Amino acid sequence: MKIKVTKTDLLTGVNTVQRAVSAKNTLPILQGIKLRAENNTLCFEATDLELGIRSSFDAEIIEEGTIVLPSRLFSEIVRKLPDSDVVLESTDHITNINYSGSSFTINGYDPEEFPEIGDVPVEDEIKLPADLFKNMIRQTVFACAAEETRPVFTGLLLHLEEDNLALVGTDTHRLAYRTAKIPGNKQKFKGIVPAKSMQEIYRLLQDDHDLTIYCSKSRVFFNFGSIQLQARLIDGQFPNYKQVIPQKCNTKLLINTKNFTDMVERASLLSKDNLIKTGSVRINVENSVLKINQFSEAGKINEEMKINQDGEDVSISFNSKYVLDLLKIIDSENILMETSGAVNPCIFRPENDQDYLCLVLPLRN
Amino acid sequence: MKIKVTKTDLLTGVNTVQRAVSAKNTLPILQGIKLRAENNTLCFEATDLELGIRSSFDAEIIEEGTIVLPSRLFSEIVRKLPDSDVVLESTDHITNINYSGSSFTINGYDPEEFPEIGDVPVEDEIKLPADLFKNMIRQTVFACAAEETRPVFTGLLLHLEEDNLALVGTDTHRLAYRTAKIPGNKQKFKGIVPAKSMQEIYRLLQDDHDLTIYCSKSRVFFNFGSIQLQARLIDGQFPNYKQVIPQKCNTKLLINTKNFTDMVERASLLSKDNLIKTGSVRINVENSVLKINQFSEAGKINEEMKINQDGEDVSISFNSKYVLDLLKIIDSENILMETSGAVNPCIFRPENDQDYLCLVLPLRN
Repeated sequence: MKIKVTKTDLLTGVNTVQRAVSAKNTLPILQGIKLRAENNTLCFEATDLELGIRSSFDAEIIEEGTIVLPSRLFSEIVRKLPDSDVVLESTDHITNINYSGSSFTINGYDPEEFPEIGDVPVEDEIKLPADLFKNMIRQTVFACAAEETRPVFTGLLLHLEEDNLALVGTDTHRLAYRTAKIPGNKQKFKGIVPAKSMQEIYRLLQDDHDLTIYCSKSRVFFNFGSIQLQARLIDGQFPNYKQVIPQKCNTKLLINTKNFTDMVERASLLSKDNLIKTGSVRINVENSVLKINQFSEAGKINEEMKINQDGEDVSISFNSKYVLDLLKIIDSENILMETSGAVNPCIFRPENDQDYLCLVLPLRN
Repeated sequence: MKIKVTKTDLLTGVNTVQRAVSAKNTLPILQGIKLRAENNTLCFEATDLELGIRSSFDAEIIEEGTIVLPSRLFSEIVRKLPDSDVVLESTDHITNINYSGSSFTINGYDPEEFPEIGDVPVEDEIKLPADLFKNMIRQTVFACAAEETRPVFTGLLLHLEEDNLALVGTDTHRLAYRTAKIPGNKQKFKGIVPAKSMQEIYRLLQDDHDLTIYCSKSRVFFNFGSIQLQARLIDGQFPNYKQVIPQKCNTKLLINTKNFTDMVERASLLSKDNLIKTGSVRINVENSVLKINQFSEAGKINEEMKINQDGEDVSISFNSKYVLDLLKIIDSENILMETSGAVNPCIFRPENDQDYLCLVLPLRN
């Protein structure tokens, strides 16, 4: 293989695929980035067998071929190259990187060992505005579980029911649910996409990309810009999320988002070493006034703000991290809080937006 | 004590003094920030007994007094306060922070226990342009030792000899030396100022500040803007730095700073797992060409660039981190390298600047 490319193109390629490189030291070949030069196109690939990313662009191919280079060393070299043309030339898994009269020689892997990343099927795919899908990810992925003990909660449910697409994330203490319309779609699909793959899509997807999604039995394929990304679905049964979302409530509150965020942040400073329950925040609502009164060894806090109240007075405790996480992704000036008392799931929604909700289970005192 | 201040003023005060708060859990009172309200002035103070910082500004003092608040909690509260007026009111070491109809109450320390930070003497001080002194710190402090086994190397020597001021830092492998003229000064002084204190001055000092320095037997006082900073000198004998700086050399090289930096950075990628010596870079100079040829298990690198050579050919090895550290603080287009072979100290200087040099000991192969 012999190709001539700019440093910028190399850097874009490496940055695009690098996070699919395996972080674990299982198969050595998965530490590699594959470069395939064919038909005036240079294609970068990396995979950890769960997530696969491929990115292609035009390049001057002097001799076609395929190489696999150690990801970490190669990406560090690329970052430090001068801003000039670079010639990559490879024989017997040894690659010369030539630039400005100097050169690097690095030992690669056998490309035959690199797992095949299949092509994205081009039939039955669904189309979605890129900015909409990015926002759907942002509004749901934070609710996924971090620990891998129960795998189904480390992914987002992608649920396609004819013209309705839903993304749902939950760690069993909270649930984030976002829907969008896909006009004219006839397909049905239900699969759990790893949160890590969704975060990569969020990172790589640009608002002006054309995004298509294709769902197969074991994988979901995302195609946008010059990037193809595939994610292996997580096995297991996702909870029936529709069943846990309450359809009515005893109290509806309309609260200024920013002021509420500030109040909870301040209260959480004290609850850090709260003797009763770490990280809890107790909210009292009475006569259209929301109050937080907390104390710890370090001191106490008394906060209050006027809100719009419709329904019964209520007193309810939350894990303050869960409340702050959801407030961070709410862009509207006010937030709607729907509650039926201290033991029932509470729902938060942006004002005037029926496509999104975040459910949080209260803490029992 | 009762005062009315803006959030911004509180935040500036806390940010200015906070890094002098003790990081160690020795004396509880040293975890505190002292606020003294007196004569329409609010004064913030913190100290870990080595470094003391005081910052004052005008404030509405309703009732004079002194309080000491727990630094971490108080600074986090201040950061999260709304952008409005704040009233601090204190009785019996308990302080109420009132804002926008809400309030925090925090338990403070007994101000009697807080160590006195002396006033800065206003006689015999020397004056120096703030931007010059900042640059002097930047060009020398990186050469100080990080580990505290030999305390004298964890500080910068401040050496005043009549109209000449020198700052010198060394960890015994390298030495950075910067001088400046203080016209008309008659004083002599030699003291080792902790690198941490110098870094704080670098952080707080602004180019338009008037800077005065006063040296006493055990402390150095820095006065600038509304800030007074005092540093306790490190006990011990600083090496005779003038003796170790070679006065002549066999080879003088003039090298493009940016290209040299890039070359050494690339070579250091391979030397990370260099089997012979971790982090070493070997430079070969012959006929006005500088070459780096290195190899490791991962591959090899061949770099070369044209330079100006005056004197003998030379081959010399360095710890690449030391070379990169000094190249980072060189602002001139070219760097002058003065060497007398592989075993003698090598001197790097910015082109056309006799006020600064950095000496690096070569690695013996």
